[in-house]
Amino acid sequence: MLGSNSIGKEFVVTCFGESHGRCVGAVIDGCPAGLPLAVDDIQKELDKRLPKKEEIVSARREEDAVELLSGTYEGFTTGAPICVLVWNKEVISDDYDAIRHTPRPGHADYPARIKYLGFNDNRGGGRFSGRLTAAFVMAGAVAKKLLQLAGMEVLAYATEIGCVKMRAAPSLEDVKEKTYESSVRCPDLAVAQKMEEAILKAKSEGDSVGGIVECVALNVLPGVGEPLFDSLDAELAKILFSVPAVKGVEFGVGFEAARLKGSQNNDSYTMRDGEVEAITNNAGGVLGGLSSGLPIVVRVAVKPTPSIAKEQKTVDLLEMKDTTVQVKGRHDACIVPKAVPVVESSVAIILVDQLLRAGLMPKVLGVEAVGESSDATEEN
Amino acid sequence: MLGSNSIGKEFVVTCFGESHGRCVGAVIDGCPAGLPLAVDDIQKELDKRLPKKEEIVSARREEDAVELLSGTYEGFTTGAPICVLVWNKEVISDDYDAIRHTPRPGHADYPARIKYLGFNDNRGGGRFSGRLTAAFVMAGAVAKKLLQLAGMEVLAYATEIGCVKMRAAPSLEDVKEKTYESSVRCPDLAVAQKMEEAILKAKSEGDSVGGIVECVALNVLPGVGEPLFDSLDAELAKILFSVPAVKGVEFGVGFEAARLKGSQNNDSYTMRDGEVEAITNNAGGVLGGLSSGLPIVVRVAVKPTPSIAKEQKTVDLLEMKDTTVQVKGRHDACIVPKAVPVVESSVAIILVDQLLRAGLMPKVLGVEAVGESSDATEEN
Amino acid sequence: MLGSNSIGKEFVVTCFGESHGRCVGAVIDGCPAGLPLAVDDIQKELDKRLPKKEEIVSARREEDAVELLSGTYEGFTTGAPICVLVWNKEVISDDYDAIRHTPRPGHADYPARIKYLGFNDNRGGGRFSGRLTAAFVMAGAVAKKLLQLAGMEVLAYATEIGCVKMRAAPSLEDVKEKTYESSVRCPDLAVAQKMEEAILKAKSEGDSVGGIVECVALNVLPGVGEPLFDSLDAELAKILFSVPAVKGVEFGVGFEAARLKGSQNNDSYTMRDGEVEAITNNAGGVLGGLSSGLPIVVRVAVKPTPSIAKEQKTVDLLEMKDTTVQVKGRHDACIVPKAVPVVESSVAIILVDQLLRAGLMPKVLGVEAVGESSDATEEN
Amino acid sequence: MLGSNSIGKEFVVTCFGESHGRCVGAVIDGCPAGLPLAVDDIQKELDKRLPKKEEIVSARREEDAVELLSGTYEGFTTGAPICVLVWNKEVISDDYDAIRHTPRPGHADYPARIKYLGFNDNRGGGRFSGRLTAAFVMAGAVAKKLLQLAGMEVLAYATEIGCVKMRAAPSLEDVKEKTYESSVRCPDLAVAQKMEEAILKAKSEGDSVGGIVECVALNVLPGVGEPLFDSLDAELAKILFSVPAVKGVEFGVGFEAARLKGSQNNDSYTMRDGEVEAITNNAGGVLGGLSSGLPIVVRVAVKPTPSIAKEQKTVDLLEMKDTTVQVKGRHDACIVPKAVPVVESSVAIILVDQLLRAGLMPKVLGVEAVGESSDATEEN
Repeated sequence: MLGSNSIGKEFVVTCFGESHGRCVGAVIDGCPAGLPLAVDDIQKELDKRLPKKEEIVSARREEDAVELLSGTYEGFTTGAPICVLVWNKEVISDDYDAIRHTPRPGHADYPARIKYLGFNDNRGGGRFSGRLTAAFVMAGAVAKKLLQLAGMEVLAYATEIGCVKMRAAPSLEDVKEKTYESSVRCPDLAVAQKMEEAILKAKSEGDSVGGIVECVALNVLPGVGEPLFDSLDAELAKILFSVPAVKGVEFGVGFEAARLKGSQNNDSYTMRDGEVEAITNNAGGVLGGLSSGLPIVVRVAVKPTPSIAKEQKTVDLLEMKDTTVQVKGRHDACIVPKAVPVVESSVAIILVDQLLRAGLMPKVLGVEAVGESSDATEEN
Repeated sequence: MLGSNSIGKEFVVTCFGESHGRCVGAVIDGCPAGLPLAVDDIQKELDKRLPKKEEIVSARREEDAVELLSGTYEGFTTGAPICVLVWNKEVISDDYDAIRHTPRPGHADYPARIKYLGFNDNRGGGRFSGRLTAAFVMAGAVAKKLLQLAGMEVLAYATEIGCVKMRAAPSLEDVKEKTYESSVRCPDLAVAQKMEEAILKAKSEGDSVGGIVECVALNVLPGVGEPLFDSLDAELAKILFSVPAVKGVEFGVGFEAARLKGSQNNDSYTMRDGEVEAITNNAGGVLGGLSSGLPIVVRVAVKPTPSIAKEQKTVDLLEMKDTTVQVKGRHDACIVPKAVPVVESSVAIILVDQLLRAGLMPKVLGVEAVGESSDATEEN
Repeated sequence: MLGSNSIGKEFVVTCFGESHGRCVGAVIDGCPAGLPLAVDDIQKELDKRLPKKEEIVSARREEDAVELLSGTYEGFTTGAPICVLVWNKEVISDDYDAIRHTPRPGHADYPARIKYLGFNDNRGGGRFSGRLTAAFVMAGAVAKKLLQLAGMEVLAYATEIGCVKMRAAPSLEDVKEKTYESSVRCPDLAVAQKMEEAILKAKSEGDSVGGIVECVALNVLPGVGEPLFDSLDAELAKILFSVPAVKGVEFGVGFEAARLKGSQNNDSYTMRDGEVEAITNNAGGVLGGLSSGLPIVVRVAVKPTPSIAKEQKTVDLLEMKDTTVQVKGRHDACIVPKAVPVVESSVAIILVDQLLRAGLMPKVLGVEAVGESSDATEEN
Repeated sequence: MLGSNSIGKEFVVTCFGESHGRCVGAVIDGCPAGLPLAVDDIQKELDKRLPKKEEIVSARREEDAVELLSGTYEGFTTGAPICVLVWNKEVISDDYDAIRHTPRPGHADYPARIKYLGFNDNRGGGRFSGRLTAAFVMAGAVAKKLLQLAGMEVLAYATEIGCVKMRAAPSLEDVKEKTYESSVRCPDLAVAQKMEEAILKAKSEGDSVGGIVECVALNVLPGVGEPLFDSLDAELAKILFSVPAVKGVEFGVGFEAARLKGSQNNDSYTMRDGEVEAITNNAGGVLGGLSSGLPIVVRVAVKPTPSIAKEQKTVDLLEMKDTTVQVKGRHDACIVPKAVPVVESSVAIILVDQLLRAGLMPKVLGVEAVGESSDATEEN
């Protein structure tokens, strides 16, 4: 099957919906049966997209109450596809008519118009909108529950926003405790404060800023990955480049590896307490497309939000002449904070898919049946 | 992607939902942009599952009002995935407790219990219920609109029910005009009358009957099909065996071909009015897995409804001893009439998928943009 | 991935080659590592396509010496793709020029010419030739070794050829011992004798005959199959309709089920020696798309070989006028005997794929490493 | 299908073979029929992997004479799968025994051993070897011919090796004329000279260096890409991370985008000669996962070859104690030069796949049939 709105091969996530359509949702096919799953498990993750400080994000305020339409019974997944969605309620599409036919720089407007001959729904960016990432997060919530059972964990955080960078790698404790305490999802709260200021400054100038999201996956067994082409890093990169605004992906020391010598870059092995251990993790936990047993470390570059209030040059596609556009509507001056849970979810989705493919996660969880029952009738 | 609840490779249909869950739905990914599509187009097809005479079908009466959740804008498809569903409202799950742990003969109860360790939702058959075929029909409605634009047509009808058979092949006119006039979906109304009687007799005896559904696809160009493995007949057979209760599939003369000589079975060619024509159509329109240009003719055997009121032998899986079961609930004494639009839809889905794969259907319909617009903002 | 020359989702078989090209081969991706596999394991199965009596088969005599090009090391599979092929050596393409532009009735010539605009290699049928089934059998040989380890077995045999039928179901002993003793692959040697006569008679008349191949799969656990669309019967039907000349597929009582009542067709359960057992197997071992635990029983209708020496009506596509064709070349008057190992292989391929998908077959076999080694260098 | 050794959904490339096995090859399924294709077309591209100066590359000297096993007829592709391979002849596996059980730092040895329980063929890196990229290049050669017909071009070159960087972007003329004149595949020959020196210095120290490969794709129409998940950048990133030693991928300004403001990063539009044009190309030709009409610009970070002559710390997995390893064998002190044609091929493969998926490349090329013929017989 090649549905281009699906990702994963055993844990298959299909996304649907548009920014200003009726809803945004996902169908998750291939989730093992027997996973305890309630709406709250998903709601909790989805709420991470909601900012703490209203100033730094879009004025669109969706309640985003998760609805679980299929795939669970008596509190457990059944092995049938899980359909989950949120309704779009706070849609204001009035702003848009003024600037039809003037593609916004940095957006998909122009190529999408050509690809779909104008049939695409472009209210609020349509299916190219960051709002679609709500579907990533809902599916990621299911993936994270599965990883938790397997003793694994995925943690993302902002390391750089608007040229404000964390100086040192954060401690795991800080990542776990402080990331979501910060409105910008940076575990160093002092740095986070400066990042916020950078965002607010850009916003006040009618501009926007980008940044870097780092993500670590802990306790991943060695040997996860399906070479030649479905290797762990290849699959992670694919989903991460599907997140709107991502322009770069690197593992471990990443681009810096190009400047090291082999003797510097190779992660040597040693024995510690009877276990094989690598002394460094320049590889970011991936060797030959397989997990090495060390933490997976991946970093993504997020571009500045293309929607800015400043006047920009563009063209009028009806009159075929130069013009300008000022993007009104409601938008974030920086989408890095929202990207953090999305990156986390994306990595979780791929990890579950790869664990299932490697035979390292069972297709049905739990030994004894819970909802054991054999019902009376089938209705047609 | 290998979601087992998806079919098609370019026109990809993913089904979700359960008989007694919240809904039954489908996501259609890969539908060309620019197709005029309204809820009514789908509702009209779904209503074909609803019987005219209440006596011959299940007492479950769902309103089945189609909801179109994504993928259209201003009356046209956008190229984004189309999510469509019907809510389950008339669910009565009370009947079921009495006979938990006693697998119903002829149903998936026993193997499903083992496969999913009892986590599967088996109220009303869960995802194995014939109710899931509502999703086939909703997706099929979209496929049929596409085929119509391409000048093709798919028509199914019952040729045999409860040992009552049509004697001769029906005329195309009768198929088009009378099939849905008949409660049993047989275009010969005299035969239809006898089929109804056979169903009612079986029902009165607490029993059920099966039958044969034939389907023809008209005006299919030659060369449709993707050998070696995704040939037209292989793909059609796959979806048709996914329809609950189907136990056999054959093309053209089908099993009878095994008894003919090559000289009898081969369809010779001749020129008629400057066009190549085959004199006969024993092949049912498929040669070497490719459409031959003649009508595709496929026939499926539908088993008698396994849910019957008669007492049947089974086992008690808790006490591991012999027992009996009487299936109460609401069920059809014959599912052939409901299978007719499902077969039609299934064939339409595969034809569209294969036309897209062969490059014989455009990815975007229409030359000039309709909803041409370039909107102001993207909301995240 | 949607390569139309691939089948399976975890045990993925990709076929390549043509009848008169350089070779016919397969790449098997997803075979568990650790399976003992030698060329002989594959050769032995491929030799089953070779007839015992020369009279009843094509005059083409290929040595068909299997070459194993990748995927094994020190006698075991490695988890890397297995490429296996046979070279075409006995190619005689001279016969063909005489009747270019005159499509042979019953062959893919006409639709293939239209689909590929004449670019297809049609020497000896090209990729539509039955010779491609050598690839099915080579891949099937690997699948059968895996099934053997899992305690399962797949057995096919001819039950009908040229209107000569077996009267009763054969015993398992006869199937195992006599099927390949018979030139026509029928386990009842008296019937086999008459089948041979039917073939020779057809041949002497410049004609051909078809028949029925039945296949049983033994010891398949209950719960194998991936509904909704990748159910066991759907996947089996798909591969079986990919076998050239197959026009019908049915499970268990198959088309006869359409004429039974529910009370007759349902397979009741009983306890025997503490185990749940079905009293009958009308379902052919498949319920709701899942294996039921009983033998899988599937039957395919094979049409008479379209290549016949008799004169047939056809058209001249250059001059666009009626003409006749007599198929010369070397061909079988009945392909049922060759279809028997192909059906067996096809069923084995799907079973392995489905066992892997259900998590019922490990991704790596064997606990201790055999070829344990960590080599010195990587060459680029 | 989920064969992990396949990539692409319509133009599907399946790789097989090992470094020290019998061969390395690819099956290309989905190539349009009617493409003129000869062995030389592929050989010419494969030869680009061969270095001009022997000093800077591995001592392994394979003739690498391409064999074309299927899928062409009378000089044109047929629409059937194309199998192409090179035999391994210069295999020296003697070096390896000395250091079995001691995983080489920076290689897949350790995780592969765990994943495959030691069954993997690890002579010369087995399937993880850079030698597998010969398959990428052979398949890429076919893709490049298709792109050429469509007026597109893909060009890669080294911009940085061993900390020696090109200062400015190269002109297109230099890229086309000088890249392969340079042994290190850098179009600035003065810089190339210094890169060579950096490689030779590292080699003399028993060490290795990495670098950056940049790739541009010219004349790609706007609107190529299949969102949500099969967007152009996501698919390119996936194949590029499948190239051994790649640790980072970025488009356009890439990671630098994270440090720009929206007003700086957005590429504004203007009209030039009646055509819409973007003033800058910070996006690297990809917006919202779709090609924008500007050149696609992608950059990959290649780590230093992990195989180095210097002594490295590792562990002895039999005795579970610390030890050291010195990688002997034959290896490149820098694989960037070899990576250049591999990156070029990888990008070409994905572009063809995406053009086919978007319906922008025909499934059959050419209007009139060339090898028009309808052959006599089919041999089984």
